[in-house]
Amino acid sequence: MIIRDKGENFFMSINYLNAIKRIEQRRRELPGAISLAQGIPSLPTHEILRQAAKDAIRQGWADSYSPPAGLLELRQAFQRKLQQENMKYEAESEIIVTVGAMEALSAAILALAHRGEELILFTPAYPAYRYAAELAGLTVREVPLNEDDGWAIDFSRLASAITNKTRLILICSPNNPTGSVLSESDLRKIAEIVEENNVIIIMDDAYEKFYFSQTALLFNLATLTKLHSRLVRVVSFSKTFSMSGWRIGFIHSDKTIINKILAVHDTLVNCAPVISQYAALAAIRHEQELIKPYLLEYGYRRQLMGSLLTELKPRLEFGWPQGAYFFFPRLTGIRGSEKFCFDLLEKEKVAIVPGEDFGQGGQGHVRLCFGRSRADIREGVKRFGHYLNRFFIE
Amino acid sequence: MIIRDKGENFFMSINYLNAIKRIEQRRRELPGAISLAQGIPSLPTHEILRQAAKDAIRQGWADSYSPPAGLLELRQAFQRKLQQENMKYEAESEIIVTVGAMEALSAAILALAHRGEELILFTPAYPAYRYAAELAGLTVREVPLNEDDGWAIDFSRLASAITNKTRLILICSPNNPTGSVLSESDLRKIAEIVEENNVIIIMDDAYEKFYFSQTALLFNLATLTKLHSRLVRVVSFSKTFSMSGWRIGFIHSDKTIINKILAVHDTLVNCAPVISQYAALAAIRHEQELIKPYLLEYGYRRQLMGSLLTELKPRLEFGWPQGAYFFFPRLTGIRGSEKFCFDLLEKEKVAIVPGEDFGQGGQGHVRLCFGRSRADIREGVKRFGHYLNRFFIE
Repeated sequence: MIIRDKGENFFMSINYLNAIKRIEQRRRELPGAISLAQGIPSLPTHEILRQAAKDAIRQGWADSYSPPAGLLELRQAFQRKLQQENMKYEAESEIIVTVGAMEALSAAILALAHRGEELILFTPAYPAYRYAAELAGLTVREVPLNEDDGWAIDFSRLASAITNKTRLILICSPNNPTGSVLSESDLRKIAEIVEENNVIIIMDDAYEKFYFSQTALLFNLATLTKLHSRLVRVVSFSKTFSMSGWRIGFIHSDKTIINKILAVHDTLVNCAPVISQYAALAAIRHEQELIKPYLLEYGYRRQLMGSLLTELKPRLEFGWPQGAYFFFPRLTGIRGSEKFCFDLLEKEKVAIVPGEDFGQGGQGHVRLCFGRSRADIREGVKRFGHYLNRFFIE
Repeated sequence: MIIRDKGENFFMSINYLNAIKRIEQRRRELPGAISLAQGIPSLPTHEILRQAAKDAIRQGWADSYSPPAGLLELRQAFQRKLQQENMKYEAESEIIVTVGAMEALSAAILALAHRGEELILFTPAYPAYRYAAELAGLTVREVPLNEDDGWAIDFSRLASAITNKTRLILICSPNNPTGSVLSESDLRKIAEIVEENNVIIIMDDAYEKFYFSQTALLFNLATLTKLHSRLVRVVSFSKTFSMSGWRIGFIHSDKTIINKILAVHDTLVNCAPVISQYAALAAIRHEQELIKPYLLEYGYRRQLMGSLLTELKPRLEFGWPQGAYFFFPRLTGIRGSEKFCFDLLEKEKVAIVPGEDFGQGGQGHVRLCFGRSRADIREGVKRFGHYLNRFFIE
């Protein structure tokens, strides 16, 4: 477990932009470069959603601010979606529409913890969690996941990371970057720890529908009513509905908690973009028919990328992802992967993400996104393989 | 000058939502209630902008994240707009597209000052400035504007508010809520003070084109090259182009400053909504033809509301606004206007904003927005007048 410095070090940690953004920035400058880096679904936003947005524009519904928490109609639709998933939250007081998951997470962290308090982060983890925590002046305590156990939680490490300053525990399952999914029994153990230690759990459910094994789908912490006043859940429409450019997410929790987050949300952004809120309304109404073909396609791409990566063994090793849309292979005999990735981009024109960007446990790994198109996956992994073979021969 | 408490008091200050949002929330619950409260332009987003957005949707340009700083094409267009206004900023490194002005302001304040440092705020001022500063753990020092001198800056008060902890000075001209405009000589004096005291000035130019006197338009602080590394300017498209629901603003400054703000912006929201970025691109391309009719209409509404309010003298007194789209009359013989406004809403079904929400100097005032429709202005001021007369008779 590493204890990192507080707020003042925000700019040191972030190196202005994280490696994902920096490598994308460089990739855009290189003609012909392919990206498997940033987690962007290549599938287009569905025509039903586009049509809903165009209708809202034509009707003039999208011109003016919505209430800070979002259109009531949209919150009510989201409440019904939650109900179908056995989660009970009130549209009027327990749900906020946000500018994607990132704004939800930043607002929640800024609202719920004070400078000097601590946030527990299981790593490897999406780097922006750390930045949001450091922006709020929190100390981040990393608890590395156990790679040999399929990136499961090491509860003895977790126990020793909890102090009397622990205020927040952040979890992301399915996980970015590992693609692993926390088991029901591990989630229930976390629930107990949260209750015993009087902390709040923030659950980034950005990949809520992205499961590639059926059993994993059965349990969600937000269905536990005893956690109602201790759990904040964040949902993104960026991945589930291929809406990353639209900037729509949701946050739901107990009324008292949501009141605080709403004050921060209102101060940060006023409200989520209204056109996108109308598209999101259509997304909820057509959720089932929209998601099925997406999942089929991502299932295919997972197989495709996994097969291609298998051919690169023993240059790399990996477990197959159970959720999200990333492979996170470990490169054999390489520790620092940032230099590797930037050099790969220059020489072979393919962008992937260095694992150390995700914190402890990420060293020597790289992240490849299979949300990208089949063609990009084929060509991208091929280029990656070329470089890997050359790298090992040299 | 009042020194308020720091970060911990954020939730006390904001009372969860400011009075503007709380009164709008109540107004939405009352059938037939009219609002002259929140600053929402009633004019629709122009058909040219709507068409650009629909085109972007159809082409699939809006589905995926843009770079964190925004579409390069849009930043380049904004750079050219600035050039025509004699402001020199580089699209690649000195401009960020934001989720409206509020995200720009919050990101700038979070990025540029540390907890315990101070921000100087001229009041009356838009309440979210204080919230953003308190969210960042800053101490807010209020410097009341001089109402008797047309809400001009009292430089002796400003001088005594500056300490060795002063890091930021925030100005908004044309001003919300007063409608006053700072003179060129006052702006130049501020520039000197900023240089002498090694502070950064944040300029909220949300109403950059909303001037109702020709002379006021001639000077903008951001044209002074000597201030380049000390000035952060925020521009909103919400008012200028009737795009409040679209959530688009811009922030520009020196490269070093923008790098820091970009890191915070990326952490808070990832990027601005991409559909709205395409609409904003069309807005810049058609700026002149779009703004002229808007300004003509707002000029008319200003006359309309001013004439109607004149009939209510001596129940109230006011100066005519030179910019923005608010009247800020003082109610004769009334100090606390919050109770007045909520009672007015219940009894007469018209929402206006209590002046104390804007800090020192706002007491006993109310804010009325003439961005609303002619019909709402006529009916709203009529209802306000009824109540005012009854209030005085009782």
